[in-house]
Order: sequence, then structure tokens, then C-alpha cells
Amino acid sequence: MTPVDPDTGLLTPGWAGSPAASATGDTAYLQAMLDAEAALTRAQAGLGLAPAEAASAVAEAADADRFDVRSLAERARAGGNPVIPLVADLTKAVGEEYGPYVHRGATSQDILDTATMLVAARTLDLVLADLARAERALARLAADHRDTPMPGRTLTQHAVPTTFGLKAVGWRSLILDARDRIETVRAGLPAQLGGAAGTLAAFTAYGAQDPQAVVAAFARELGLKEPLLPWHTLRTPIADLAGCLAFAAGALGKAAADVLTLARTEIAEVTEGSGGGSSAMPHKANPVRSTLIAAAARRAPQLAATLYGSLVAEDERPAGAWHAEWEPLRDLLRLVGGAARDAAELAEGLRVDAAAMREHLALTHGLIVSERLSAELAPVLGRARAKALLTELAKRAYSQGRPLAELLAQEPELKDVDLDELTDPARYTGSAGALTDRALERR
Amino acid sequence: MTPVDPDTGLLTPGWAGSPAASATGDTAYLQAMLDAEAALTRAQAGLGLAPAEAASAVAEAADADRFDVRSLAERARAGGNPVIPLVADLTKAVGEEYGPYVHRGATSQDILDTATMLVAARTLDLVLADLARAERALARLAADHRDTPMPGRTLTQHAVPTTFGLKAVGWRSLILDARDRIETVRAGLPAQLGGAAGTLAAFTAYGAQDPQAVVAAFARELGLKEPLLPWHTLRTPIADLAGCLAFAAGALGKAAADVLTLARTEIAEVTEGSGGGSSAMPHKANPVRSTLIAAAARRAPQLAATLYGSLVAEDERPAGAWHAEWEPLRDLLRLVGGAARDAAELAEGLRVDAAAMREHLALTHGLIVSERLSAELAPVLGRARAKALLTELAKRAYSQGRPLAELLAQEPELKDVDLDELTDPARYTGSAGALTDRALERR
Amino acid sequence: MTPVDPDTGLLTPGWAGSPAASATGDTAYLQAMLDAEAALTRAQAGLGLAPAEAASAVAEAADADRFDVRSLAERARAGGNPVIPLVADLTKAVGEEYGPYVHRGATSQDILDTATMLVAARTLDLVLADLARAERALARLAADHRDTPMPGRTLTQHAVPTTFGLKAVGWRSLILDARDRIETVRAGLPAQLGGAAGTLAAFTAYGAQDPQAVVAAFARELGLKEPLLPWHTLRTPIADLAGCLAFAAGALGKAAADVLTLARTEIAEVTEGSGGGSSAMPHKANPVRSTLIAAAARRAPQLAATLYGSLVAEDERPAGAWHAEWEPLRDLLRLVGGAARDAAELAEGLRVDAAAMREHLALTHGLIVSERLSAELAPVLGRARAKALLTELAKRAYSQGRPLAELLAQEPELKDVDLDELTDPARYTGSAGALTDRALERR
Amino acid sequence: MTPVDPDTGLLTPGWAGSPAASATGDTAYLQAMLDAEAALTRAQAGLGLAPAEAASAVAEAADADRFDVRSLAERARAGGNPVIPLVADLTKAVGEEYGPYVHRGATSQDILDTATMLVAARTLDLVLADLARAERALARLAADHRDTPMPGRTLTQHAVPTTFGLKAVGWRSLILDARDRIETVRAGLPAQLGGAAGTLAAFTAYGAQDPQAVVAAFARELGLKEPLLPWHTLRTPIADLAGCLAFAAGALGKAAADVLTLARTEIAEVTEGSGGGSSAMPHKANPVRSTLIAAAARRAPQLAATLYGSLVAEDERPAGAWHAEWEPLRDLLRLVGGAARDAAELAEGLRVDAAAMREHLALTHGLIVSERLSAELAPVLGRARAKALLTELAKRAYSQGRPLAELLAQEPELKDVDLDELTDPARYTGSAGALTDRALERR
Repeated sequence: MTPVDPDTGLLTPGWAGSPAASATGDTAYLQAMLDAEAALTRAQAGLGLAPAEAASAVAEAADADRFDVRSLAERARAGGNPVIPLVADLTKAVGEEYGPYVHRGATSQDILDTATMLVAARTLDLVLADLARAERALARLAADHRDTPMPGRTLTQHAVPTTFGLKAVGWRSLILDARDRIETVRAGLPAQLGGAAGTLAAFTAYGAQDPQAVVAAFARELGLKEPLLPWHTLRTPIADLAGCLAFAAGALGKAAADVLTLARTEIAEVTEGSGGGSSAMPHKANPVRSTLIAAAARRAPQLAATLYGSLVAEDERPAGAWHAEWEPLRDLLRLVGGAARDAAELAEGLRVDAAAMREHLALTHGLIVSERLSAELAPVLGRARAKALLTELAKRAYSQGRPLAELLAQEPELKDVDLDELTDPARYTGSAGALTDRALERR
Repeated sequence: MTPVDPDTGLLTPGWAGSPAASATGDTAYLQAMLDAEAALTRAQAGLGLAPAEAASAVAEAADADRFDVRSLAERARAGGNPVIPLVADLTKAVGEEYGPYVHRGATSQDILDTATMLVAARTLDLVLADLARAERALARLAADHRDTPMPGRTLTQHAVPTTFGLKAVGWRSLILDARDRIETVRAGLPAQLGGAAGTLAAFTAYGAQDPQAVVAAFARELGLKEPLLPWHTLRTPIADLAGCLAFAAGALGKAAADVLTLARTEIAEVTEGSGGGSSAMPHKANPVRSTLIAAAARRAPQLAATLYGSLVAEDERPAGAWHAEWEPLRDLLRLVGGAARDAAELAEGLRVDAAAMREHLALTHGLIVSERLSAELAPVLGRARAKALLTELAKRAYSQGRPLAELLAQEPELKDVDLDELTDPARYTGSAGALTDRALERR
Repeated sequence: MTPVDPDTGLLTPGWAGSPAASATGDTAYLQAMLDAEAALTRAQAGLGLAPAEAASAVAEAADADRFDVRSLAERARAGGNPVIPLVADLTKAVGEEYGPYVHRGATSQDILDTATMLVAARTLDLVLADLARAERALARLAADHRDTPMPGRTLTQHAVPTTFGLKAVGWRSLILDARDRIETVRAGLPAQLGGAAGTLAAFTAYGAQDPQAVVAAFARELGLKEPLLPWHTLRTPIADLAGCLAFAAGALGKAAADVLTLARTEIAEVTEGSGGGSSAMPHKANPVRSTLIAAAARRAPQLAATLYGSLVAEDERPAGAWHAEWEPLRDLLRLVGGAARDAAELAEGLRVDAAAMREHLALTHGLIVSERLSAELAPVLGRARAKALLTELAKRAYSQGRPLAELLAQEPELKDVDLDELTDPARYTGSAGALTDRALERR
Repeated sequence: MTPVDPDTGLLTPGWAGSPAASATGDTAYLQAMLDAEAALTRAQAGLGLAPAEAASAVAEAADADRFDVRSLAERARAGGNPVIPLVADLTKAVGEEYGPYVHRGATSQDILDTATMLVAARTLDLVLADLARAERALARLAADHRDTPMPGRTLTQHAVPTTFGLKAVGWRSLILDARDRIETVRAGLPAQLGGAAGTLAAFTAYGAQDPQAVVAAFARELGLKEPLLPWHTLRTPIADLAGCLAFAAGALGKAAADVLTLARTEIAEVTEGSGGGSSAMPHKANPVRSTLIAAAARRAPQLAATLYGSLVAEDERPAGAWHAEWEPLRDLLRLVGGAARDAAELAEGLRVDAAAMREHLALTHGLIVSERLSAELAPVLGRARAKALLTELAKRAYSQGRPLAELLAQEPELKDVDLDELTDPARYTGSAGALTDRALERR
């Protein structure tokens, strides 16, 4: 074994230093495994299957600071998981008398899966807090800019006007969707306890009349759900985490993609509150928060794919599918945790340039309202004539670089039409305001 | 353009010919787009925004059989989606008078997204029916084999005994999880209607006082949910479909993986009802249903990843992310549809060889109950002595190929112990029966 | 079995109608399988293991038009692959006398894998032709715009100037990388022939002295490589195809991403030759070719992942991994084939607006050359003074909206400096021209 | 910022402690970045663009041990990459006089990309060494078991006999394929140097007559290739790494999948040299090495997919695609590094039970040679009679549990046939031996 060179976040600016980072570190996992072991002995003590003193002894020993995480990592290799050496060290720490009550009836997977659920639960709570921050800031932006017109863009081209309010409330809507999906999954995270092959047989061997009561007590101790069945190879909880985390990454990624577009030098309709500097180029204010969120969103789907793939777990414990879950799930928690933090900062600091937005509405020489003109001039001029006229004037507007409104004003047929109204992009935002109001009512 | 060579399923035995296959073909999509167009005109007629005759004219014309799907496919290329040529053809079919009411106020994405939701809804209903068949068959198997002991296997090795009932009820449990997730998503599938940039502005231009009422009526006509916001670039429904379909594929894949293992020539504890033959080798009965399910489960996660990736959809319509959804979503519907059909057939036809299972319990010379012996001999012999004795006898059992029970019986220390009970694998299945009962109560 | 609703390309504008589409259709696969069967009998006849008349009879019968592809698709389901019913039909078509020489010694996988290699080879040739078209057009663009300055953009912000020539030659360079990788893989595509478990045993049973000679002759007949070993579960050729196709999709996707950015309404430095229209908005010229390429690039990596995953193929033929390859590989061939066609059209038609590029160089008020100023004013003013001055003037340039050059000109310290040279973005393109020249030399 | 909880490998038994682990740690990356900085100054000094003393000063300061990696990680967050704070610290360490020569003309991406290439090169060398160990051990196994017959298995069922030699040489063949692909990529890994937007302009500003000479010298200093173009957004080297690493993971995963199957309790034809123990079940010898390789093989394709996806990198530096590469590439290097180590140990320690293999050849009552019988009895009995007889006897063999050879011997028609030869599975291994010999000649 070569000595360990620990990772401290050098390549992970997207999540290093975030709340989720410390909730998912090796020490956090170690403590969660110890919490599971302590809860297991406590649950058995509560049912009279172990002395109360044993529960106390395990609880006292189950402190991550007393364990050498590097040594555990090294010894994990022999059996392929860290619980085997951990149980050895914990048993020793508890001492001869109560040592035999450590891990009694359980299998490694019971402890590691339960620890994973604890880590996930703790991390998701932090993620939810940052999503809430982001959501509140976006609600404010949407309300403030309910009527700020801007170009609606499709396939990269100006289409018809929209508002920044509708855009911001759309971002918020995705974050609320992410929140709802995470909360549902969070609420259902189960403890894992089944013994060697998920039959709870060892608890019987150790004297339990009702092994399912041990499971119930164990889950209760940890604040996790009691599972209907041991889920060693029924990986619904992992797949559900994959789904809600991939969703959250993508939801935040959508907002980041829009910010990256709108922050382009040529567009500059929004700016990140505190852009990343560049030593060589003092004028640059890079949209770093959005960039890091975008990077997370590029990675999350494939990590989730690996986890969905691990549903295919043969037998009562699979040779590989389980082991393939550990890092990708942690990576997902970290990426989403980091992205949620960045999204909160991004939303709270985003600067919106309403003047730039309005200015861009003129870039197509007024053609951004051509849809409206087609619709409203048809009754006036007849469908065919309206179409012909608009096609001709559109060409002239582009070739001569003149506003369509100006060209229309020269048409005698249209002298009774309120062209100011018809050609003002700001007055062609449809239901954007009403939709924003409605979406803001969602809590 | 080279002439089209249509796909008829030559490379897709996993789903060709399944109910989901015909629900997701080009004609099915075409009809769903036409259904959306018809509903749109009908919704506007209902609100007085179009003549009732227009609604009737569109409804009558909106019949897939009247359209040339190959021609539409070819012409889709110019604008990058099939709705543009479809609207042209439909408008022509409806005729001069009511043609202008076709597609009025809508954008291509409104129609294609809505059609996708219709296709998804129709296909998921078929999937749910096949999952129900599979689930019922597994419930029967689990009940029948509640007490059929078999080796529990972890990391490919015999661990402790389990029952086939517990295994089958676990498969069923995953299918019920899939059903629940699909039903939730199915119930929430929304119509799409937003116009060019999601502001509903064109409906106003065409005279609607309350464009949101058009959306509500449109959704109602189609039996889909009314969305809170147009979701052109808020792709929650697509991501939710990705999640539940990837889950379902994996859930079925777990059962298939177990069947493939248990059907191995050396194990032969289960056999598919009707194995695939081999012309060259008459003795072969290949587990073809499981094989095809396993293949689907290998593909689904990556298809879902692409869909989760498309959450990152810039602007009001993205240049690529939307287009990247169409085929993977259809592929997922087909793969899961095919796998659900195969799972139903597999579960209904599965033959279980309880004798083989029992026979295999002896393969480790009785060591499959060593966990129990460790636990129950410790109080009799003392922990240390029990461990030493078992270790020694285990070695002898393997080296001499003799049953552990026989060796134990020669130990005078154990003359008062009921070794028949302690060493019978069939009596060390723990809570397998009780867990099976409990899980069967879930409906 | 529900009747087949064939796919004709309604949802696949990205590749429908492309050369690759017809080279990968069901009929093309069927013909390739028949080609493999014919070559197999011919190879045996050449070695005296079958009558020459048998070879002729099989060759004559092996015409896709004589087979019912839908029926084959339906019957493929029983055994899980289309070769089983195909051999039955072909044997019957060949007739009683020579029928026994059909498929002699082979296994289904021999035929399907060989057919896949033939389809891949034929499709890659078409892809290479379209890549060559794209490459030539980009070479012209790069040469034409060797000295066309434009903003270099990093993290969405203007950084320092670059040239369109360097950008175009970079796109070309990626296409040449794709070409090289595809050519290498194309040249190595092997025939597959191993018999039931890859031992060639059946050929011996049928009288071959040297079964490896049958493999060599078979490969030669088809213009494929002779493999060192049967590769039923040594899937290097499939993985290599996955790699070069995922690479090609990404290489084209890079160019598409740049075009999509540069074609934005606010930037408009390039325009696709023939943009996709929009019925509702006559001014829109959507970058459809780039959009469809971008969509392909979003999907290809995950399809390749499935194929790389299928390297893990147990035994002598796997239960699922092989079957999971068929559609993803075909999808990749189609996506890359469609994208190559679109890239050729895109490159050949791309319109470049050099004036817009130059205009944008002024958007940062001259700060796009601040890197140069930092470097070149330091020796004049001293490092510290240069930095302080530039920082101050940069702020003023932005706040007052004035060109940095104008502010610098007012500084007496700089009266001897050639500020026209130093502040002209077009004169700060470094080695862009030389790099373009060098890269154009690559053939 | 929450304090960093470093990862020390607790969740990564697959690669913790491997040579690749320490070659890819944060410290290794930091040192590689420092190596790049030192080489950059040295290259410029060599061309007279910096004083020789500056090169010495930077080289001396460029020692990872002198830097605080945690602090760098924390400060990386502001600008989104670790080079920005590193350059600040390095400049300070070098001191006032030569500090200005640190990082001169370069951009962050030049350093991080070059460091990544160095880390990749160093890690791939370690991987190649472990692949070579594995390959040699497999060559020995293949030679030793050239004629060890065993069942060939397809779709989980016995098909026809094969040999363990052919299986082992197949595993080796995949490893050689992996080696070849890695070596090709390794040999082409390029340095990165382009400056802010890849034009090398800053070098000109600092006085270089021929900036491309700086690139050449820089690459030479580091033992990397000189790139044809700066590849900030031409990510061929990253994609090539993705491809060869995903291939290697899958190649090793194939062998692991076979070992996991053959090591099953019921099959037990092979055993890992040192199985992982289980505290609860003393008889268990888990195939841990194979399990961890299998886990790596499940993850690698999706990590590669993310990297292929990052080919789509817009502009001159992308906002997210680049950042999304760092962790997945490191993960791939680690997973393949760990899997290569495990494969070497696995191959060197694998125990083969030839007796078990031979015993299993009888499991189908002789039907494992039915293909041969069909072929060889047809000329004796006529095709139709041979088929009818075999079909009937096959049924009887199964129903009566009697060897097919015994039943055949009772047929008077066959009295002149050498049934011992015809029905001995060990004599129906076809070209397995010859193929093994040929494949072993490959070096």
C-alpha cells in the first residue's frame, strides 16, 4: 500500500467548502457508521436483547475522533468494505465484556447502507436550506421584474418578447420541483437491517422473539423509516436519491445556462454579483457561480445512471453493483450541495440590466412583434394582403436597417391602426405577468 | 434524401410486437400530434375564439391515416421538427375557410410536447397492465414458496439460508415500487401550451381575454393536467418520465439477473417457462425473457441520463436539448414496455425446482448455518471455545468432504445440544416467512 | 403480437434521409446478414468443404428483397435474435439439396456480429465522405479568414482577440481527428466466426482440417479483417466503434456549439446558409443544422457508455450484454452519419460577417487588449505604475463608456508610445495566423 | 467555508492504496501544476525570454511540500480553478525579482491542462505495469490450461465444450488490447500552451519572436508532445483518455465477470487466491478482487460519457465543460489504476479446479456434444434419421438422468461408430488449443 494522499478539494471548487462537503467527508461517513452501530446495540438493549451497559459502552466508543480513518481505509481493501475493520476496532474499543454486543446480528451492508441514509438525510437537509435561499431570492427577482420586457429567444434567435419576471419565476418553479422531489425522498429514507442474507435470522439465533421489532427500534433510534423488507438488493432508496439529485442538478443547471447566455459580453442583460476575476485581464468578470453549476449539471446525469444501473443487483448481495454505488452517490450529494450553495449566492447577487433588455428588443427592427402583426392586421387587410405586406416590409426593415414601425406608418391602409401599440414589444408580453403572479403563489 | 428504409423491429426483439411498440410508433406519434391540434381548435371554439365548425373540420381531418408519414419525416428536416410540415398539411386538409384556425396561437413545441405526453400516458397505461400481471404472478410464487428454503448468496457465495418466497416477494416489491412511481408520474403528465416563447401572447392577439383559459380547456380536452407554467424549457415532466422508466427497467432487471443466475446449468433452481431454443444444440433452453429484460436494464440508465441532461435547456426553446429528448424518451417507453411484457410472461411461466434448492443447501457441508452455530454454541461452550471448535471443524468438513453436522455429533461437549435443529438449513431461515407475509399484504 | 408500426423517421430529423440512414435500416442489416451467410458457404466451398453449387445456391437466395423483414422481426422474439428465423427461411429458400450447407458450423452471433461489421464499414465510409466535405469547406473558410479578427471568448466573456481563421481551423482539426480515429477503426473491423462457443469445433465435425482457414476465407470474402480469436465476448471492435463515434459526435458538436453562439441575434457573426424558417415569425432564420448536430452530440456519449458497458460480457455469450449493443450501435452510426451530413452542409453554407466581428472587438472599450498593455507598458512605466494606471483607466473606460485608447492618449507619460498599434485589437492576434497556416498543412 | 474533511479512501477500497492512488492525489496534481510552471519559465529562459536565474528560482520554489493545498482548494473557489491562487503563492515564493517571470504569457488552463497530462502520463505508466503483470500471469494460466476442457456457456447454459486456456487467453487478449490503446494515447499526450485565448499573443507582447518555439520548448521540458494547436476547446486528448480508460475498465471487467461466475459456490471452477473473509461466516471466501474490478467496470463508461460530452466546449474556453472534466478523469485514472492492480493480483493468485470443470461437462448428460453428434451421425444415418434419433435420446437422457453415450451405445445402427470419441466432451474442443497457441504468440 502506498501512503494515502488525501483529497482536500483542489480539483473541486464546485463543492469544496460547502455545507454538503463536510457532511459527506470520510469522517462524516465514519461517524454515521458508528451512529448505526450504536443505534443497533441500543435497539437490542431496549428490547432486552443486550444489557443497557453494552448500549452505553458502544455509544461512548462510537466517536469518529477515536478512530483512524486512514487505517480503516487501508484495511477496507481486504474484504472490500470499511465496516469489517471498523467492527474490529469498535469491538476492541468497547472492551471484552460488551464487545460481543457490537454489530450483533448485523452484516456489513446493514451498517454501510444505514450510514449512507444518515449521510444522505443530513446532506439533503443542507441542500434544502440552500434551495430555499435560492428560491426566495428568485421570487424577489421575479416580483421586481414582473413587467420587465426582454427578448424571448428560441433556437438562439429572438422570437417574441417575454419578461424577466417570467424567466425568473420559471427558474424558481424548477427549484420548487427539485425541493418537492428531494423532500419526498428525504422523508422516506429507510434504515437497513437484515443480517447476512436479509432474513434477520441471526437475531433469532441471538434470542430475539420478534426480529422485526429490532428493525423497527433501530430505525426509530436513527430517525429513519422502517423498511418493509431488508433492501440489500432492492435498491429503491438509492435509485430515488439518484433521481431527485439528478433532477436538482438539472434544475439548477437550467438557470445557470440562462445566466451564462444572458451574461455574455454582447448580451450583458444580467451579471453575477461577484464575478470571478482574471489576473491577466482586469476587465473580465466571469460568471463563475453559473459555470460551476453548469459543470455539476453536466456530470450528475451520468452519476445517476450508474446508480440506476446498480438496481440490477443479483442474489442477496451483489458482487460489484453495491460497491459501485458508494462514490457516485457521494459525488451526487456533493455536486448538488455545491450547486445549491452556488445557486443561492447567484440568485441573491444577480444584477439585472432592464435597459439592456429593452434595447435588445429593437435588434430585429421590430420583427419581434411580427407574430402579433400577422394576427392583428389580417382582419384589417385580409389575410393574404397582410401576409404579403409584412413579408415585404420585413425585408426592407432588414435591408435598410429601419424599424418596421416606421415602414408600417407609411402605409396608407394602416392609417387608422394604433401602430404604436401594435409595434411596441413591451406591450406584447401576453400573459407573462399573470403567469408570473400565479407561479409566485406556489409555496 | 435517400429513400426511407423503415425500421420494423429486426434488431429489437426486446420490444417488437409488444403493446408498447404500437403505442409508440411513428403513426401513434402522428395521431397524438393530430389529437393535440384538434383539441386546440376545440378548446378555442369552446371559448368562442373559433367557430364550432372549425373545430369539427379539424377534428375530422385529424386522422393519421390521411397523412403521409414518410413525407412528413422528410420535410421535418428543414425546420428540425415534424410539426411544421404537419401544420401545413393539416391546414390544407381542413380547407380554406377553417384552415386559419389550425394551430392558431400555438408553436411547434406545444404540439410535439403535448403529443409526447399523450403517447407517454397511453404507453404507461399498457406498462402498468403488464406490471400488474407480473406482480400478481410473483405474489402467487411467493405465497406458494413461502417456506421453500434455498441458499442465500452474497458476493456469489452461499451465505445463510433464505427462502424463494422472500426472493420472489422482493422482486414483487420492486415492481410495486415501479408501479407507484409510474402512477405518480402518469397522473401528473401535463399538456403543453405557451405559444412562441411561452407567454401565450398570440392568443391575446387572436382575441382571447384570458389565454390561461385556453390552456385549461386544451388540457381538459386531452385528459392531461393543466400546467402551472408553459414548460418549454422547464422539463420536469420529461425528467420525471426518465426517472420512473429508468427505475422500472432496473426493477425488472433485478429479477432478470436473479433468474439468469438461478437458471444456470449448474444451479438450475428455476427455469423459464418457455426457453429459447437453439438449432445447433437441442438441449439448450435459454432464458430468453430474462436476457431481453437484462439488455433493456443495461440501456435504460444511459437513456435516462440523456433526458436528465436535457433539463439544461437554455432560453425559451433550446437549440438541441429539446431535440435530444425525442428518441431517448421513446426508446425508454419501448424498452420498459417490452421488459414489462417479458416480465409478465417470465413470472407467469417460471418453474421452480425446490428440490434443487434444498440440495444446494448442503453444498457447503453445513457451513451455511455456521453463523447460527457461532451464536448458539457460544453460551454452551464459551465464546472462545465455540469459535475455535467451529473453525477447526469447518476446515475438516471441507478437507474431508463431510457434513459439519456429522463432525459436531462426534463432540462430547455437544451431546445435549439439538444438533438436528441447529444444523438444518431449512430451520435457519429467520424471519423470511414473516417478512414474506408482511410484504404480500402490500397492494 | 400487435402489428408493427414501422418507424420512418418522424422523430429523427437529425438523420432521416441521410446516406447513413439507408445504410443502417432493417433491410441493410438483413442484407448484411445474408451477405455473411453467402460468404460462409462460399468460404467453405473454396476449401472443398461444400459443393460449389451450394455456394451459388446460397448466394442467389441471399437477397433481402426475397425475405419478409417484418416476419423475421416477429419471429426473432422467441430466441431473442433475428438470425434463428433467418437461417430457417434461407435454408428453405436454398432448397433441400443445398440447404444443409446454409449456416453450417456457425452460430447466430457469428452472422449478426459479422453483419454488424459490414453495416458499420459501409456506414463509416459514408460518414468519412461527409467529414471530408466538411473538412474541405472549413479549410476554405479558415484560409479565407486567416486574418479576420474577432473576440476570443472565455467563460462567455471577451478575453483577447483571436481570428475566425483560427477558430475554423480548430473545428477542422477536430474533424480530422475524428477522421483519423474512424479510419483506424474502420480498417480493423473483423469478421466474426467461432461457432457455438468460439472454438470452431463444428467445422471440425463437418470435416475441416484447419478451421482457422475457414475463418480467414470468410473474412476475405467480406473484405473484413480476420480476427486473432473469435470475439463473441471479447468486444473490442464494438468498443472501438463506440469510441470513434462518440468522438466524432463531440467533435462536430464543438463546431455546432460555436455556431449556435455566434449566430445568436445579439452576436450574429455567422449565419447558417439556409436557416430553418418559422411560420409564425418570418424574421427567424434558425440555425437548424447546428441544432440537430448539437442534439446528436448530447446523445452520443451515453450511447457509447452502454457499448463500453457491454465489454463486461460473461461466459462465451452473455445474457443481455450482447443484445444491449444492437440498437445503441445503430443509433450511434445514424447520429454521427446525420451529423456529418449536417456538418458538411453547415460548413459549405456558413456565412461569416467579418464586420460584425470587428465591431464586437470594441465592446469592452478596448479592454480586450489590456493583457497586451499590461505587458508592454510595464517596461515603459514600471510594473507597478503600469498596473495602477491601467486599473484606473479601465474603470473610467467602463463608467464613461469611452475607448481606453482615447484615455491613454491623454496620458503624457505615454506620448512616445505607439498607442494605435498597442490598442488595436486587430493587431493583437498573436500567432493566430501562423497557427492557422500550420494547421492547414495537415491533410 | 466549512473546514475541509479530507477523503482518505474510506469509500474507495477499489483503488485506495494503489500506485495510481498516490499518483492522482491532490498533492500529485499540485506538483504537476508546479512542474508545468517551472517548465514554462525554463522554456522561456532557454529562448532568452527570461533570465536563467528566474528559471532556477521558479524551479526551486515549485515544490508541492511548500504549498498549503487546503488553502489553495479554498481559494480556488473564487475564480473557479486552483491555478489562480497557486500563481499568486508561487509568485510570492519566487520573490520580487523573478516573480514577474512566473506564469508569464500563460493562462490558467495552460497549467491545469498540462498538469493533467503529466498526471495522466505518470498514472498510465503505473497502469501499464500492472496490466503487464496481469497479462503475464494470464499467459501462464493459458499455457498451463491449454487443454483443460470445461463447459462453454452461452446465455447461462452449457453449449459446447471449450478450454480454460482459450478463456484465459481471451482475457489476456483484451488486456493487450487495453495496453495497446493506452500506449497509443500515452505516447500522444500533449502539453497545453496557448495563453488567454489560444493565440499565444501574450508571448509576443513579452517579446517572443516565435511563440510557437516557446510551446515546443515547454513540451520538451515536460516530456509531452507539442500540440499542433492549443487545445483549450479542442479536447481530443481528454476524449482519447476517456476512451482508452473506459476500454481498460471494461476489458478487466470481462475477466472479473467470468471469475465471479466460475467462483460461484455451485460452480467453483476457479477461486481467488486470497478471498475476502466474512466475520460472521467463516466458510466464505469472497471473490473480492473481482468484485472491486466489477464495480469499477460499472462506473467507468458513465465517467467516460461525461468526458466525451465535454468535447462540446464552446468559445475559446467553455463555461462548465472544462470544469466538468477534472473529477471524472481523475476518477477514471483511479478506477482503472485500482482495477489493474486487482487484476494483477487476481491473475497471479487464481486457482483453477480442472477436475470440477471436467465434472461439469457431464451435467447435461452428454448433450454438450450434441452439436458434434448431429454433424457426424448425419452421414452415417441420414440427416433426418440422425435428427430424430438424437431428439428422442436427448429426451430420454434428461428424463432418465442417463448419459447420452450409454443410450447411443444401445443403438444397433451405431455399432460401428466410435462413440467413445464422439461423446467425449474433452475431445470436442475444436481449435481451442490452436487458437490459444496463436493468441499466445501475440506480445
